[in-house]
Amino acid sequence: MAKPFTITCPVPVNPADFVTLAHGGGGRLMHQLLEQFVLPAFRSEELEARHDGAVLKVGQTRLAFTTDSYVVAPLFFPGGDIGTLAVNGTINDLAMCGARPLVLSTAFIIEEGLPFETLKGVLDSIAKTSREAGVKVVTGDTKVVDRGKGDGLFVNTAGIGVIEHQQFIAPTSVRAGDAVLLSGDVGRHGVAIMAVREGLEFESTIQTDCATLAASVQAMLDANIEIHCLRDLTRGGLATGLIEIAESSRLHINIAEAEIVVEENVRGACEILGLDPLYLANEGRFVAMVPEKQAERALDIMRSCSVSSHARRIGTVTEAPASLVTVESCIGTRRILDMHSGEQLPRIC
Amino acid sequence: MAKPFTITCPVPVNPADFVTLAHGGGGRLMHQLLEQFVLPAFRSEELEARHDGAVLKVGQTRLAFTTDSYVVAPLFFPGGDIGTLAVNGTINDLAMCGARPLVLSTAFIIEEGLPFETLKGVLDSIAKTSREAGVKVVTGDTKVVDRGKGDGLFVNTAGIGVIEHQQFIAPTSVRAGDAVLLSGDVGRHGVAIMAVREGLEFESTIQTDCATLAASVQAMLDANIEIHCLRDLTRGGLATGLIEIAESSRLHINIAEAEIVVEENVRGACEILGLDPLYLANEGRFVAMVPEKQAERALDIMRSCSVSSHARRIGTVTEAPASLVTVESCIGTRRILDMHSGEQLPRIC
Repeated sequence: MAKPFTITCPVPVNPADFVTLAHGGGGRLMHQLLEQFVLPAFRSEELEARHDGAVLKVGQTRLAFTTDSYVVAPLFFPGGDIGTLAVNGTINDLAMCGARPLVLSTAFIIEEGLPFETLKGVLDSIAKTSREAGVKVVTGDTKVVDRGKGDGLFVNTAGIGVIEHQQFIAPTSVRAGDAVLLSGDVGRHGVAIMAVREGLEFESTIQTDCATLAASVQAMLDANIEIHCLRDLTRGGLATGLIEIAESSRLHINIAEAEIVVEENVRGACEILGLDPLYLANEGRFVAMVPEKQAERALDIMRSCSVSSHARRIGTVTEAPASLVTVESCIGTRRILDMHSGEQLPRIC
Repeated sequence: MAKPFTITCPVPVNPADFVTLAHGGGGRLMHQLLEQFVLPAFRSEELEARHDGAVLKVGQTRLAFTTDSYVVAPLFFPGGDIGTLAVNGTINDLAMCGARPLVLSTAFIIEEGLPFETLKGVLDSIAKTSREAGVKVVTGDTKVVDRGKGDGLFVNTAGIGVIEHQQFIAPTSVRAGDAVLLSGDVGRHGVAIMAVREGLEFESTIQTDCATLAASVQAMLDANIEIHCLRDLTRGGLATGLIEIAESSRLHINIAEAEIVVEENVRGACEILGLDPLYLANEGRFVAMVPEKQAERALDIMRSCSVSSHARRIGTVTEAPASLVTVESCIGTRRILDMHSGEQLPRIC
């Protein structure tokens, strides 16, 4: 193998040859990176499904399996920290597969010089958040990198959940006629991080919405709601989540702007900062696609769980125009939602 | 939560308050970090088992689950790269639980500015190594961090394997009288990385021993060998692996120096560099503890697999002195192997 034995950070002669921050943003560039490099390398049907996690059968047991690395800056922010994010993020990805989350792994990449106090704060968060969600941390790893080769702390969590029903919840299961339900207001996580990072102060502190969604999903499954697709709205926000589902299912999703709740202070921050709340990251919100006839019952169940108590129906899936998401404004005009190339804010999770 | 919202890299007033490179070395300091911070935070019996992975029962299925983050520098080295390391490392941790590895997740933390060519090289390695081992990459994640906040590329892999037998393979299953088998020569990975990093040249290039150990373990299981414990000899090398097992099992392990093979060029490099091959990282070597009466058959089976074709019996487990590892030199003297505080070389995997 005649491979180079050193890694260099070359001067970007052709910028197209190098990874940029936008490639991590969950938008169009990240999809290009996946389509061009990752998917062709691995050719696995589970990856091709472009779901939040993989669904596997081991013996007679159906499992969901997922992973995420967290590189959020700063490590602590109003309402949470990298630990709460890492636990809830992985639990939520399992829940989006319709699985009951069981166990987590945690792997830490620590930059030399991190105060033990900081590490302890994050470990305590991970322990508390996972305990509250009834999920056990069962295995892990710790690496340390030289000062200047990391950024305090990066956390990876992987998780396993068990699927205890016969449904196949995935973008490809979405059908024309499905109702699109949204579990709550959007944009809070993105603005919370942005505000801390840029030292912005608002009348009241905007807190992340970071929370586990597993109980809300489990309640729907327990009530035998037929769920076609679930998606938590992280990097890229509501818009990107819906566009991904429209593209995978080759269907059209139409949503009503008036039904999408953005809290007053989040909307204010977005106006000042020039951000679109539909594209801002959330860490405790999801959409559910369910058959029209089950929409009302599903909404009632979602509203009975505190994390989704403000759930609303925001739209409908139709046949055409295929693979597109449109938004109807309050005055009746309609626009197409397009995927951003990157993320409005890098390193949001 | 009155937590600070910025992370600072303070001047180390008291060095004991901060994580050092040695805390990632697999030695005594890393064990202190685990004992003092990680284990008390999570209090999970699976973590307390201090095994290479966790063993879980989901429904009627017994699973092994493990994770590792890889931060090796440089990314490419003779005989492998961070991709081969990440795949084999996680497969091997599953194998050490006596599991048949099934699926992997991969999560990338990319530093802005990494050439796509480098990423592609690593992705191809991951794909090739996992394909050859019959293991599928089924889920993943990609994050990008700002230039100067990472080091090219960090890779996390987590893995799931299935346990298809009734044995409980773990340090606590080791018994006095067990034979200690070692699958091959030691020290190659550590010297291979060191040589590249320091620009050292030897008569012949020393290659990493990085390889999957699953086939060798599976062959023993298929032959109904009673295996008490397995351990792959990564960070901290043979010495640390044995010390961990002696401490967990509260037994004494005595090994014969004459039975431990160190290749001529590795031994030469160690002498020049002042390294002890017993503490050098390996990425394709393991020890097996089996009952005395099965030792010969187990060795025959190990030798029938190319990755462990030079397997040898290196010692025996006895009752006392409890929790200690001793080495008998060629002239009959005996010394205690003590855990190093860190790793002789940081960022070896």
